[in-house]
Amino acid sequence: MSSAGSPGEFELIARHFARAAGNSRVDLGIGDDCALIDAGPERQWAVTTDMLVENVHFLADVAPAALGHKALAVNLSDLAACGAQPRACLLALALPRADDAWLADFANGLLALAEQFGCSLAGGDTTRSTAGVTISITALGEVPRGAALLRSGARVGDDIWVSGHLGDGALGLAVRRDRIELSPAARLAAVERLERPTPRVELGVALRGIAHSAIDVSDGLAGDLGHVLKSSVVGATIEWGALPVSAALASLPLEFQQRCVLAGGDDYELVFTADAASRDAVRAVGRDVHLPLTRIGIVRAGGGLTLAAPQGPMDIQPRAFDHFRP
Amino acid sequence: MSSAGSPGEFELIARHFARAAGNSRVDLGIGDDCALIDAGPERQWAVTTDMLVENVHFLADVAPAALGHKALAVNLSDLAACGAQPRACLLALALPRADDAWLADFANGLLALAEQFGCSLAGGDTTRSTAGVTISITALGEVPRGAALLRSGARVGDDIWVSGHLGDGALGLAVRRDRIELSPAARLAAVERLERPTPRVELGVALRGIAHSAIDVSDGLAGDLGHVLKSSVVGATIEWGALPVSAALASLPLEFQQRCVLAGGDDYELVFTADAASRDAVRAVGRDVHLPLTRIGIVRAGGGLTLAAPQGPMDIQPRAFDHFRP
Repeated sequence: MSSAGSPGEFELIARHFARAAGNSRVDLGIGDDCALIDAGPERQWAVTTDMLVENVHFLADVAPAALGHKALAVNLSDLAACGAQPRACLLALALPRADDAWLADFANGLLALAEQFGCSLAGGDTTRSTAGVTISITALGEVPRGAALLRSGARVGDDIWVSGHLGDGALGLAVRRDRIELSPAARLAAVERLERPTPRVELGVALRGIAHSAIDVSDGLAGDLGHVLKSSVVGATIEWGALPVSAALASLPLEFQQRCVLAGGDDYELVFTADAASRDAVRAVGRDVHLPLTRIGIVRAGGGLTLAAPQGPMDIQPRAFDHFRP
Repeated sequence: MSSAGSPGEFELIARHFARAAGNSRVDLGIGDDCALIDAGPERQWAVTTDMLVENVHFLADVAPAALGHKALAVNLSDLAACGAQPRACLLALALPRADDAWLADFANGLLALAEQFGCSLAGGDTTRSTAGVTISITALGEVPRGAALLRSGARVGDDIWVSGHLGDGALGLAVRRDRIELSPAARLAAVERLERPTPRVELGVALRGIAHSAIDVSDGLAGDLGHVLKSSVVGATIEWGALPVSAALASLPLEFQQRCVLAGGDDYELVFTADAASRDAVRAVGRDVHLPLTRIGIVRAGGGLTLAAPQGPMDIQPRAFDHFRP
């Protein structure tokens, strides 16, 4: 039970549902990016669900093709964080009316991404809503038994790595709200990162057997890395100077950069930990999947997350940046 | 892609999503109660999703425990219609606010049914909504490879059978809306049927290898049997006099009974077809699962559904009763 992108009170909801129903098919339940379900001696299914609500997760005027893309992308990103290969998805869709042109574009956006990652739309449900659009997608992926990347696997001494650039999702949102001046090309790139994120599926699969833990950055680095630290019962120190940000974001004031990276969310990069002896293996994976992978810090004993920042060392509470969130 | 309980225009939506994404794991996609996904040489997963929207599928004042029960029951009913054994479910929930007492009751209703059928709540997503409550559940069940009951398997000459009583769901809705006078005991029974339906899971599993086709009655017998006939490219004749209705419903005017049975929906009984040589086997299944099973008609060549009614033979269009629907 996750509650990505929603106020803190909604995280408390999970406890109502944390009661286990007795059966032997669920190998890992509530509390990671995916649940793992027994699929025979060799395989497990990774399953995840995300719900997107109009005016909460997206605005009514978002391009429907981008919305279809993103609704699936956030689920594929959860599969990627577990190292699972996407196989199938189901779509539940509530709509105030059946608008043919909107639906064609939405379906095109969703199905193009599904095809890119070999993830069949296997079924679904469509219904009328009395208010806006609500989209709920469940994605199923496959992983060799025992090979899934979990939040709970980080070990003291692990390097902490991140893929791509962080903070561009939040930058894109600021651009969409006309809060930031950027060049036309940089505006376009940031909005594209916000609205059409690329789930890091190949990376997640390639990190099986190398990474000790992983999560996708959907709520900002502080909160998401915080989940890993809490699940693994460890702490971490990360270096601001090592964090990879785009040239566009790097041109903006430091505190805005920090808010975007630490609490912005919507990046859908992977943050993962691995043994220091695996650095060459990680770098080889980065080359194979054509993604920059950057070492940003180290896992240490104790709890908490420390940022070595230009302002001096900062203790980062996972929720410290909540009030800055969009 | 189904569109249970929604206006006809929403059924047209499915065609936007009917494009197949190429991969080998989906054995059966959009168009049946469940999708079937490859789970190794011996098994398939049956997966289904349903979305319930406040003021469309339920009223704001429904008891939250009943809502939690029903939200899962409609999905387990889809698994039952495929003969699948429930294993796991995922819940996506959008709420206008986190109301602790409401959530505790909702979770209790859902988890009690989940435990009854050995179906673990494996994960989910909770989020804020700007309007009412929206619930989306995805259920996963298991079926031996090739043993799933499909809509497309009905054969000319098959008997048509139904479990339990039909029409009580619609009767319960009429009672809830104070449109019908019944004894207190009969009122209670009808509302219970509407609000806390029992998915026919044991029946579906027991009919593997016996039934040629099956579907659950969620939209009324005419529409749901119509899906079987269309998928199987056959027709059917059913006898009004053979249709099992409760004593409470039987006490009401004939045309009201017919509307409840044929177009009422919300019964969550199974309608299935089987060879005439299997009658004893079907009756034995009914005894084993403690459910009355009634033979109501026969599959014939050609298309269409004919009702041999007291008013004379009637050609039933699947949507003929739509304007009567709640």
